[in-house]
Amino acid sequence: MNFATRLNNVETSAIRELFKLLGKPGIISFAGGFPDSAMFDVEGLKEAANKALTEEPGGALQYGATEGYEPLRTQLAAFMQSKGVKDIEPQGLIVTTGSQQALDLLGKTMISPGDKVIVEAPTFLATIQCFRLYGAELITAPVDANGVQTDKLEQLIAEHKPKFVYLIPTFGNPSGAMLSRERRMKVLEMAVKHQTLIVEDDPYGDLYFGEPPPPSILALSSQVPGSREWIAHCGSMSKVLSPGLRVGWLIGPPELLAKATMCKQFSDAHTSTFAQATAAQYLKSGRMPATLAKVRKVYAERAQAMGAALKKELGDAIEFTQPQGGLFFWARLTGAGGKLKDAGEFAKRAIEKGVAFVPGAPFYANDPDLSTLRLSFATADVAKIEEGVGRLGKALAGPQVE
Amino acid sequence: MNFATRLNNVETSAIRELFKLLGKPGIISFAGGFPDSAMFDVEGLKEAANKALTEEPGGALQYGATEGYEPLRTQLAAFMQSKGVKDIEPQGLIVTTGSQQALDLLGKTMISPGDKVIVEAPTFLATIQCFRLYGAELITAPVDANGVQTDKLEQLIAEHKPKFVYLIPTFGNPSGAMLSRERRMKVLEMAVKHQTLIVEDDPYGDLYFGEPPPPSILALSSQVPGSREWIAHCGSMSKVLSPGLRVGWLIGPPELLAKATMCKQFSDAHTSTFAQATAAQYLKSGRMPATLAKVRKVYAERAQAMGAALKKELGDAIEFTQPQGGLFFWARLTGAGGKLKDAGEFAKRAIEKGVAFVPGAPFYANDPDLSTLRLSFATADVAKIEEGVGRLGKALAGPQVE
Repeated sequence: MNFATRLNNVETSAIRELFKLLGKPGIISFAGGFPDSAMFDVEGLKEAANKALTEEPGGALQYGATEGYEPLRTQLAAFMQSKGVKDIEPQGLIVTTGSQQALDLLGKTMISPGDKVIVEAPTFLATIQCFRLYGAELITAPVDANGVQTDKLEQLIAEHKPKFVYLIPTFGNPSGAMLSRERRMKVLEMAVKHQTLIVEDDPYGDLYFGEPPPPSILALSSQVPGSREWIAHCGSMSKVLSPGLRVGWLIGPPELLAKATMCKQFSDAHTSTFAQATAAQYLKSGRMPATLAKVRKVYAERAQAMGAALKKELGDAIEFTQPQGGLFFWARLTGAGGKLKDAGEFAKRAIEKGVAFVPGAPFYANDPDLSTLRLSFATADVAKIEEGVGRLGKALAGPQVE
Repeated sequence: MNFATRLNNVETSAIRELFKLLGKPGIISFAGGFPDSAMFDVEGLKEAANKALTEEPGGALQYGATEGYEPLRTQLAAFMQSKGVKDIEPQGLIVTTGSQQALDLLGKTMISPGDKVIVEAPTFLATIQCFRLYGAELITAPVDANGVQTDKLEQLIAEHKPKFVYLIPTFGNPSGAMLSRERRMKVLEMAVKHQTLIVEDDPYGDLYFGEPPPPSILALSSQVPGSREWIAHCGSMSKVLSPGLRVGWLIGPPELLAKATMCKQFSDAHTSTFAQATAAQYLKSGRMPATLAKVRKVYAERAQAMGAALKKELGDAIEFTQPQGGLFFWARLTGAGGKLKDAGEFAKRAIEKGVAFVPGAPFYANDPDLSTLRLSFATADVAKIEEGVGRLGKALAGPQVE
């Protein structure tokens, strides 16, 4: 069979390799990119679903507007307002089938084959593949502990004139980094100066452990005249409530939302009204703040435990910035003491010792740093984290040649 | 903002015009393409959702496999087996976010810009737009009361060597036509002879009024050696259970399913596991046969009433084949007695009289027949159908010039 040429742009073997790592029994996994199922407010969602099917069964079960189920758009606008986006109205966002679909719609709406898009190095794996399927040429901007390096980013924008810039500014996947407020303001200024769309993907912003992070780039756009029309923002219920609902949203300039809605009409007609009505009832129930408080507390403990264990068990053979939120540690093998620097090789040895993580290379659209790795602390409890990091220590201490 | 060039391939004004027609209060609408909300088995779905969240909350709320939730794939395979597809196994299908997504994935997986795809004239509006967004050049094959004209179709395949052929063989939207068994066999033979993928979209096949239709092209493929590897089949829960779940499925050769799964991973990661688990519990509950029996009976009565009313009120000014299933009448204004032949003009007059339908022109990828129209009998009860068709009669009897 003769497939579309766009499939040649995508390499999936890296992903398949990652998934293969997880099959071994008894393994402790730091490889996932998902929240802990034990955190789901099952009772709250059960009540919400029941209420949705009781109060407005037609709305929950019939075809719905492509833009989204109106009561959910209203709830999501209020949710965004509570996070500092003062001017948002329900019609200023569209509901997407998870924020993955928001990325897909941005690709479909914006990217012609050969267009350039700037992403962080490293960035979310599925974003790389998603944009490449639409023919994007990806340019990478470097990231440090304060997020994307804005001076470099501006040079790249000036040089490449990208269709848009894609950032995960808050507790990014995989970097875990938090873009400083100062840099957020610089991003807004360069959006206006270079008339360049900035896509802010924000699935992790609510998962902070201590002080809240700076307001989102979208929220800060009110302080930079003219910037709001150059900002698109992707939100998601997946990391804070449930990925299984597949409820995300896209905020952007009206013309972009109109085109994305047209594309969505032919992608899946609309997001499950059943899931949307359930999410709307859940938000309306007022249980969200308690749910958020709970997940923040649990993940904060786990992040603390993982950081301490990594320092204890791997010492100066690994370097990382302690994350202030999100789900991930992003780390680099230093090679200190003649230990391994290759994270791919380390991953293989770790599997043999009964612990899994994801090597960092696939998260780079270009020029991978082979010494990097991503560790999720979300799904293992503190005891498992300590046991798993102990196994990592043994794996790194093992013989240099297999 | 500078959008992707692929958006230039799509004309949405036709669709927007259709939707505008429906705003007027008191209107009787034959314009929709959706099932009657009153047919939804709300209690059954409520129980199914509750069971899904009680028995396996993790599975229903966590991220899931892109291919689909395993218990649903098992149920869907059994459902297809019950419809004569003997050799289907759970891994022989992937779950899609409604069958609209199956179309989108076929487009993404198969169509390079400039590729030719053959569709019926007329065919489903959103298919035309969906494939054009991927750059397809659409070639149209004529349809009569027995479905696509297979002699013409084979000529077109030989001439254009299309990437694939898209058919809605059973009670098609909008044609309502049923492809005869003889022609189904011919389609299978030409698939093998010309090594051409045939996509069978089958959302309406379960909605038959009297005798069941012939087996699907997929089911019949077991009788034509070598044909199975050239058949893709799209199924849907939308017309028989609930569109709001957004649960469809795609069956096809393993290589095609693998590529479509990769594309789906970057489109929406997976279909809502919450909706999938609910659908799986519903199918497992055994309520589906009774639900199907009910909708068949109700829609059969409405189709009967609409056919009789059209004959009585519009006489020889309209011609149509009485549908044997599905949701639609496809009709043609004859101009008899000097009456209107332009269905667009008729639609405007009908709205003035308080009744809406969809003119047929937008359902043609090329060379629209302006005298055609589509009438849905699904959402109005018999009394409303008679009242609405009465209004159609008055609209057609009105003065020739506004």
